[in-house]
Amino acid sequence: MTRLVEKFLRIFARRGRSIILAYDHGIEHGPTDFMDNPDAADPEHIIKLAREAGFDGVVFQRGIAEKYYDGSVPLIVKLNGKTNLYNGEPISVANCTVEEAVSLGASAVGYTIYPGSGYEWRIFEEFARIKREAVKFDVPLIVWSYPRGGKVTDETAPEIVAYAARVALELGADSMKIKYTGDPKTFSWAVRVAGKVPVLMSGGPKTKTEEEFLRQVEGVLEAGAIGIAVGRNVWQRRDALKFARVLSEMVYGGKKVVEVLGEAK
Amino acid sequence: MTRLVEKFLRIFARRGRSIILAYDHGIEHGPTDFMDNPDAADPEHIIKLAREAGFDGVVFQRGIAEKYYDGSVPLIVKLNGKTNLYNGEPISVANCTVEEAVSLGASAVGYTIYPGSGYEWRIFEEFARIKREAVKFDVPLIVWSYPRGGKVTDETAPEIVAYAARVALELGADSMKIKYTGDPKTFSWAVRVAGKVPVLMSGGPKTKTEEEFLRQVEGVLEAGAIGIAVGRNVWQRRDALKFARVLSEMVYGGKKVVEVLGEAK
Amino acid sequence: MTRLVEKFLRIFARRGRSIILAYDHGIEHGPTDFMDNPDAADPEHIIKLAREAGFDGVVFQRGIAEKYYDGSVPLIVKLNGKTNLYNGEPISVANCTVEEAVSLGASAVGYTIYPGSGYEWRIFEEFARIKREAVKFDVPLIVWSYPRGGKVTDETAPEIVAYAARVALELGADSMKIKYTGDPKTFSWAVRVAGKVPVLMSGGPKTKTEEEFLRQVEGVLEAGAIGIAVGRNVWQRRDALKFARVLSEMVYGGKKVVEVLGEAK
Amino acid sequence: MTRLVEKFLRIFARRGRSIILAYDHGIEHGPTDFMDNPDAADPEHIIKLAREAGFDGVVFQRGIAEKYYDGSVPLIVKLNGKTNLYNGEPISVANCTVEEAVSLGASAVGYTIYPGSGYEWRIFEEFARIKREAVKFDVPLIVWSYPRGGKVTDETAPEIVAYAARVALELGADSMKIKYTGDPKTFSWAVRVAGKVPVLMSGGPKTKTEEEFLRQVEGVLEAGAIGIAVGRNVWQRRDALKFARVLSEMVYGGKKVVEVLGEAK
Amino acid sequence: MTRLVEKFLRIFARRGRSIILAYDHGIEHGPTDFMDNPDAADPEHIIKLAREAGFDGVVFQRGIAEKYYDGSVPLIVKLNGKTNLYNGEPISVANCTVEEAVSLGASAVGYTIYPGSGYEWRIFEEFARIKREAVKFDVPLIVWSYPRGGKVTDETAPEIVAYAARVALELGADSMKIKYTGDPKTFSWAVRVAGKVPVLMSGGPKTKTEEEFLRQVEGVLEAGAIGIAVGRNVWQRRDALKFARVLSEMVYGGKKVVEVLGEAK
Repeated sequence: MTRLVEKFLRIFARRGRSIILAYDHGIEHGPTDFMDNPDAADPEHIIKLAREAGFDGVVFQRGIAEKYYDGSVPLIVKLNGKTNLYNGEPISVANCTVEEAVSLGASAVGYTIYPGSGYEWRIFEEFARIKREAVKFDVPLIVWSYPRGGKVTDETAPEIVAYAARVALELGADSMKIKYTGDPKTFSWAVRVAGKVPVLMSGGPKTKTEEEFLRQVEGVLEAGAIGIAVGRNVWQRRDALKFARVLSEMVYGGKKVVEVLGEAK
Repeated sequence: MTRLVEKFLRIFARRGRSIILAYDHGIEHGPTDFMDNPDAADPEHIIKLAREAGFDGVVFQRGIAEKYYDGSVPLIVKLNGKTNLYNGEPISVANCTVEEAVSLGASAVGYTIYPGSGYEWRIFEEFARIKREAVKFDVPLIVWSYPRGGKVTDETAPEIVAYAARVALELGADSMKIKYTGDPKTFSWAVRVAGKVPVLMSGGPKTKTEEEFLRQVEGVLEAGAIGIAVGRNVWQRRDALKFARVLSEMVYGGKKVVEVLGEAK
Repeated sequence: MTRLVEKFLRIFARRGRSIILAYDHGIEHGPTDFMDNPDAADPEHIIKLAREAGFDGVVFQRGIAEKYYDGSVPLIVKLNGKTNLYNGEPISVANCTVEEAVSLGASAVGYTIYPGSGYEWRIFEEFARIKREAVKFDVPLIVWSYPRGGKVTDETAPEIVAYAARVALELGADSMKIKYTGDPKTFSWAVRVAGKVPVLMSGGPKTKTEEEFLRQVEGVLEAGAIGIAVGRNVWQRRDALKFARVLSEMVYGGKKVVEVLGEAK
Repeated sequence: MTRLVEKFLRIFARRGRSIILAYDHGIEHGPTDFMDNPDAADPEHIIKLAREAGFDGVVFQRGIAEKYYDGSVPLIVKLNGKTNLYNGEPISVANCTVEEAVSLGASAVGYTIYPGSGYEWRIFEEFARIKREAVKFDVPLIVWSYPRGGKVTDETAPEIVAYAARVALELGADSMKIKYTGDPKTFSWAVRVAGKVPVLMSGGPKTKTEEEFLRQVEGVLEAGAIGIAVGRNVWQRRDALKFARVLSEMVYGGKKVVEVLGEAK
Repeated sequence: MTRLVEKFLRIFARRGRSIILAYDHGIEHGPTDFMDNPDAADPEHIIKLAREAGFDGVVFQRGIAEKYYDGSVPLIVKLNGKTNLYNGEPISVANCTVEEAVSLGASAVGYTIYPGSGYEWRIFEEFARIKREAVKFDVPLIVWSYPRGGKVTDETAPEIVAYAARVALELGADSMKIKYTGDPKTFSWAVRVAGKVPVLMSGGPKTKTEEEFLRQVEGVLEAGAIGIAVGRNVWQRRDALKFARVLSEMVYGGKKVVEVLGEAK
């Protein structure tokens, strides 16, 4: 049964590749993430940005979705979340059911797992319920797979990222968001062990230069990923829409960094 | 869907702004809070005070509501609570369901979260159930958002208060009660990141002078808050009703501290 | 809604005041409590004693109720209990539902809370279920409110006992059992903050002299309590029935210590 | 309501007294218990032994019951169990419901509690569910009451065994299995505080001599117990059936140790 | 009731003995297990291998089953799993229900228990639910029984392996997978105490030489096991299919190591 993978691709990779605008930072990192570009604090601004850039979807927590979502861009409701004020053993529990997400307009749901955490078993336990519900409501389930705690010392080490990808496959993800290993070769192994599950690179913190981020994107696409789920690297920039279009040229248009940088000059 | 925000405003901000009389101190701090003004120990006295001052609502725990509530002032049932005898990791669980609150006459429900606590995930887990029930019973959910524990060292630091506001928005609050940062400029950032969710300042302990509290109220209104949820700063004063009326002039009447202090002389 | 308070008073304070014979010591302290007067180990003896003394009710755990209760005295089933072999963080969970208690003949149910315990939140969580069920089955809920653990250093300090009383009110007790503070003045504050909820003094361990206990009873009645829930101070005495009648004269008959001691001579 | 006590007696004490063959050692101690007499590893051997000795019942875990039980001897399904590899705070959870036990042919169910354990409250919480289910399915509930952990230093001290007996009564046991105190006098106090609940002595490890065990049996019967639940002291012996018949003469036939030892010579 | 044992044998031991291809390593160990033979990362390769080797079944986690299973080989869905990044107290919770497993095409389900773990009671608690569901859906339940933590110092010590086997029987396994003790004599005791429940040896890490593994297989068959559940020792080899056929000759064909090694030369 790969029906939900196909559904995910149909909605969120209409042009064969995917860019999703992540925006769950308000809970995960707090509003300091919005200070470089205060417009980013406003979800309406984010929806407009995703729509104008032609991205495939946006990621909201349930509170943002219920107060702001207008249907103009496909919605992924991120079901769980935690603050970075919390410094206990990694765990993030659902604050929204799949059923509620659907009623808020979601075309897919997202859920973060932390393999390696001392609460790994509690996380897998809740994940199982989410998965069951996602199947019941026929909604693709995108897994944010971030090994953390336990024996994990480097979250972007190739073997850790590959493990992250495999766990997502084994548990029943229909798409996954994993961190970049830093080079296409090792990332391609992660994509390989993810099997039939499309891989999205997690955008991460804003890079020092635009080029740095574009090189990452080039690498993940070369490695076989379906695309990227990006937040700060777009909306923390004052010229967010312009940069979003550069990303579109690369991901959807298949252009290389040298091409888009040349054009940009 | 901002229907419940609108419902909250319709009931608890009839004049465009809101003053709510908080009275859950019996469980949170114990009856010592009533010793300055022993009449305050009697919930009937509190209801009368709220009614005569023309406040928008009162906040009771379920036990007070079921034994005393008479329908003369809109009611918010505070669903959770803990004692200050407890010195473990911050957590406060519901002692009342939304359904019960409604049957006791509540027009809205309140729930405290402690982002940063080692139990943050348990808190968010229960919050999700409360939220679901509030939507089901069509009752506005007011979030008391108080970061505590974990990495939190100063509960009223601007970035902490702004984070508190944002978490409440992201989780689905229909209104929120947060602490004052100490100045309108930083508080206005908290109000901004709260987005469409109306912000109430938490009154806190009785200030040394009346003016000190009035200056806070002036600041939060200037910062864009919808009003205040105040307890001790009203009912711990022997001349509670008089002071309540001064607050009304500021919050509902739009008067400044200099005006009301001048009048009071 | 004070219907369940009224129901409690109707059944357990027929003469305006109340004496209830507590008998959950078998689980709370173990059978050593019965060694001074081995007859006390037999629940039939206890029922007979309560009946002949004309007390308002008896308190049994579910196991005693189901094996011995004969309907001759109103029954309070104590829903939770722990042994004193346990030395962990204070907590006592229900071993009987309200529905079962009713089927065993209970006219009211009892439940102990330990405000201040590191498990306070678990206790309040279960209490909420019990409360809900008590309302559903229309059964008065008597709260044994004993702050313990956390910041509590003296369980009978006036501010602690008053806090105990207030928590019981705030959580929805229909009657409460609290410890004596040692003098009527401070106990009267506890009775005052308990509001509409009738207060029973917890009898505690057998006092050195009969007079000592009688002075306590006089004090709590003077302070406005509705009566006493007494166990060891009655059934640990060889002349239990005689002493029980002395208590009746004080509680129901309104006599003073000097009067009953004079009569007893 | 002593209906389930009577049902227990009707089935498991047909001749006024009771011998039950305990056989949950496979999970509690592991198969090393079977090494002295390897035949004992086979549940069919155990059923045959109980039947031929005319015992009142056998005790099996659910897995043994479902694979081996043939209906030839009344069955007690022991609902919970733990391994002795576990060295955490004492707790043993149900691996079978009462409903399942009944469907496996059980005429009664057994459940171990560890009063004093740091998990005492979790144990009592599950016990309450088991008890409720036992009443619902009209099945006698036999409590293995073994104080352990917390303040317990000597599990067979008279006051601990008496406490064990009383807790079983208070929680709703229909029969109980407790350890021997070592002498009839102190054990008779345990039997007394157990009230209407029939007491079975727990057989314990194989004694050095047969006489030693027979003296224990004599003592518990003298103290008023209804009988014994014995495992290792029967099936670890190569001449198990012969010894079983000696026990029958004592328990059912009322013979003394001197008599049966004399006969055995 | 040994119906589910018989069902297990009918499906997974068609020729009287059983070889099952285990493939839950992606979650348990991560994709590093696939690096020796990268084809092994692909579940389609595994299914083909099992089919061509004529094995009795394959073991998949739910995510692999739902994305890859094609019905060509009987399927065992392993219901629980954990990563080896986790270094807390051993526990592995279900990420799939029996009902879901059935809907994915499973003919049996697998579940790992860790007797001795500090979470042993939580494990047994979930196991009980799984068992109940397995009976309800009429699906054989295969228990991976691996004592770990607590007093366990050597997981393959004969008394530990025998204990593992017995616990699986006592809890209601319909087949079990246990580790090899190292010699047929001690393993035969484990098989004996497993009673009517067929025993599969857990294949374990790839042995240094093929002969080493074949000797183990010979030993377990000699000891009375029904067969083996093998993963790495097959699919980590580049000539996996060839080696798989050697195993078939031994397990199904009854050949000895000397015979198959002779043939292989």
